[in-house]
Amino acid sequence: MSVAAILGAGVMGSAMCMPLADRGHTVRLTGTHLDEMIIESVRANGLHPKLNVTLPKQIAPFQHVAFAEAASGADLIVLGVSSAGIGWAIDRLCDVLPGPVPILMITKGMHPQTDTLHALPDYVERELKRRRGFDAKVSAIAGPCIAGELGARRHTGTVIVSRDMSEAQRLAEMLKTEYYHPRASEDMMGVELNAAFKNFFAIAVGWAAGRLETLPPAENRAFNHNAAAIVFSQAIKELAMLTRALGGREDTAYGMPGAGDLYVTCMAGRNSRLGNNLGRGLTYKQTKDGPMKGDTIEGAELGAAVAVSLRSMMDSGLLKQEELPLTVALLDALTRDAPLDIPFARLHP
Amino acid sequence: MSVAAILGAGVMGSAMCMPLADRGHTVRLTGTHLDEMIIESVRANGLHPKLNVTLPKQIAPFQHVAFAEAASGADLIVLGVSSAGIGWAIDRLCDVLPGPVPILMITKGMHPQTDTLHALPDYVERELKRRRGFDAKVSAIAGPCIAGELGARRHTGTVIVSRDMSEAQRLAEMLKTEYYHPRASEDMMGVELNAAFKNFFAIAVGWAAGRLETLPPAENRAFNHNAAAIVFSQAIKELAMLTRALGGREDTAYGMPGAGDLYVTCMAGRNSRLGNNLGRGLTYKQTKDGPMKGDTIEGAELGAAVAVSLRSMMDSGLLKQEELPLTVALLDALTRDAPLDIPFARLHP
Repeated sequence: MSVAAILGAGVMGSAMCMPLADRGHTVRLTGTHLDEMIIESVRANGLHPKLNVTLPKQIAPFQHVAFAEAASGADLIVLGVSSAGIGWAIDRLCDVLPGPVPILMITKGMHPQTDTLHALPDYVERELKRRRGFDAKVSAIAGPCIAGELGARRHTGTVIVSRDMSEAQRLAEMLKTEYYHPRASEDMMGVELNAAFKNFFAIAVGWAAGRLETLPPAENRAFNHNAAAIVFSQAIKELAMLTRALGGREDTAYGMPGAGDLYVTCMAGRNSRLGNNLGRGLTYKQTKDGPMKGDTIEGAELGAAVAVSLRSMMDSGLLKQEELPLTVALLDALTRDAPLDIPFARLHP
Repeated sequence: MSVAAILGAGVMGSAMCMPLADRGHTVRLTGTHLDEMIIESVRANGLHPKLNVTLPKQIAPFQHVAFAEAASGADLIVLGVSSAGIGWAIDRLCDVLPGPVPILMITKGMHPQTDTLHALPDYVERELKRRRGFDAKVSAIAGPCIAGELGARRHTGTVIVSRDMSEAQRLAEMLKTEYYHPRASEDMMGVELNAAFKNFFAIAVGWAAGRLETLPPAENRAFNHNAAAIVFSQAIKELAMLTRALGGREDTAYGMPGAGDLYVTCMAGRNSRLGNNLGRGLTYKQTKDGPMKGDTIEGAELGAAVAVSLRSMMDSGLLKQEELPLTVALLDALTRDAPLDIPFARLHP
């Protein structure tokens, strides 16, 4: 059995306690400075107040100041911070790790550069090498996984990706339970791109339900699922195109990290809710100043982070703009405060 | 402008009145013998009582006995009967058509033979040739399209498929409106297989919500969307495998006729409801004898119709059984009254 130290006690990092503890691993759950109340609650009675789940008794909770203690002797670091917290987390790892411990990232996002996007695990790996000289294996997990459901031990399938397939297989084997079904993949760019961009495209799918509220009621009280379905299948096409253009494997977009995760992301959550508001006719800024004030919306933050790189790749022809009408419309809505108009006539079959 | 005669005044055939009439075509809506009350209602006040929509004034309603009159001088026959009614419809076409009028099928299904499945439009085309010597062009439409939403003129994307691409393009051009977005395809087997089998796989996706009702309630009231998402992405994989094995184009499964239509089919409808009941632990027979007595469940009827052919193709190695675990589980549930067990551990990433 292994010793796993989780850094970041948000809902997704904490939900990983379930398969880890159920497989008999020692689990040390470490909050960030934003998680102090969560760790206090877990210490007091085991209850994770955001996940609304009582964590297994054998979980050891640590405050962020004690991360060195939590990481001491760990065989695996699980990185569960938000994408905005990745710089802070790299600093902590550089501070406390004595050597190249394997890292498993739950954090989603892309690291943009002028004319390309990098997978976040590659970035973390490079930073650990540059700053500490470590050759640490950095792997990652992608959904379809709603944290609260994993916390309740519902059947959940995930993909564990590493550039070293045997490492991905080792981690999948280490984590699998009767309800947790991780699969191994070595398509780092494909898995990470889909994990990040499914949030972005879920905004567009959410447009349909919001737009419905602005339409005159139909005699037969028809919904707007047909419109959502066009956008949904276009989103899969664009996920596949972006994946291919950035060097990933197209079939990743058609599997659990793409289509599967997009499906579950459209069922609920903040990305959909932003889409609903854009469908109602609000702009992104109006939504952030109004009904979603203070909310972290992952797909919108990703859009803002990658907009310059994606537009530059379209200008240079690395990406074909005419094949990405949904991406273009979303970038305009998220970074230029344009109304989100779904270009139905330009979507693909 | 054209004259279109629709045969079959169910919800989907009748919803086609909207784009046809809005494009200025003359539309003659002909019921089957099962649609007499519908046609009476449309005659009386325009209201389609199942679609719950008032049809455009220029629609001319015909009872089935007057189909010859409705078809007289038509440039296009739209076939909107159920898959069970296809034999009856072919008889009517052979009776009344004076020559090879183009046919556009809304009817979904596969025509099974010992060791393969045929697309229904190909079968209709062959029968018209065999019985009347006609070389009629038979095309078809596939969703994602909920009839009630098209009846309410909501944005709807479809694929029109013909073995003759220019015919598919001609029909798409003839039908497109501001809200109706048909695309042309020549992948007859791919489009028709996905249109039929998405109903079959939607049963499995519906399993998750039904199973949830049998589980002890979670502290955090977690749903079962993660499980549905694994099944959803596996369904897309198996749609693609079946498509490829039968000579269709794999990317059709990843587009509107596959992933897009599966998405909308999982939002509502009888296939999902059957899945819910199987998830609750009922068998197919118990469901048909109980909560869904008398209901036509398209995905289940397809499963029963193709089971012998698919099993024979698995036995002969034309289909790889180990790559189709969901198909196997569904066939067992639908034709051998086995409980539907989702083989989570055997699904693909």
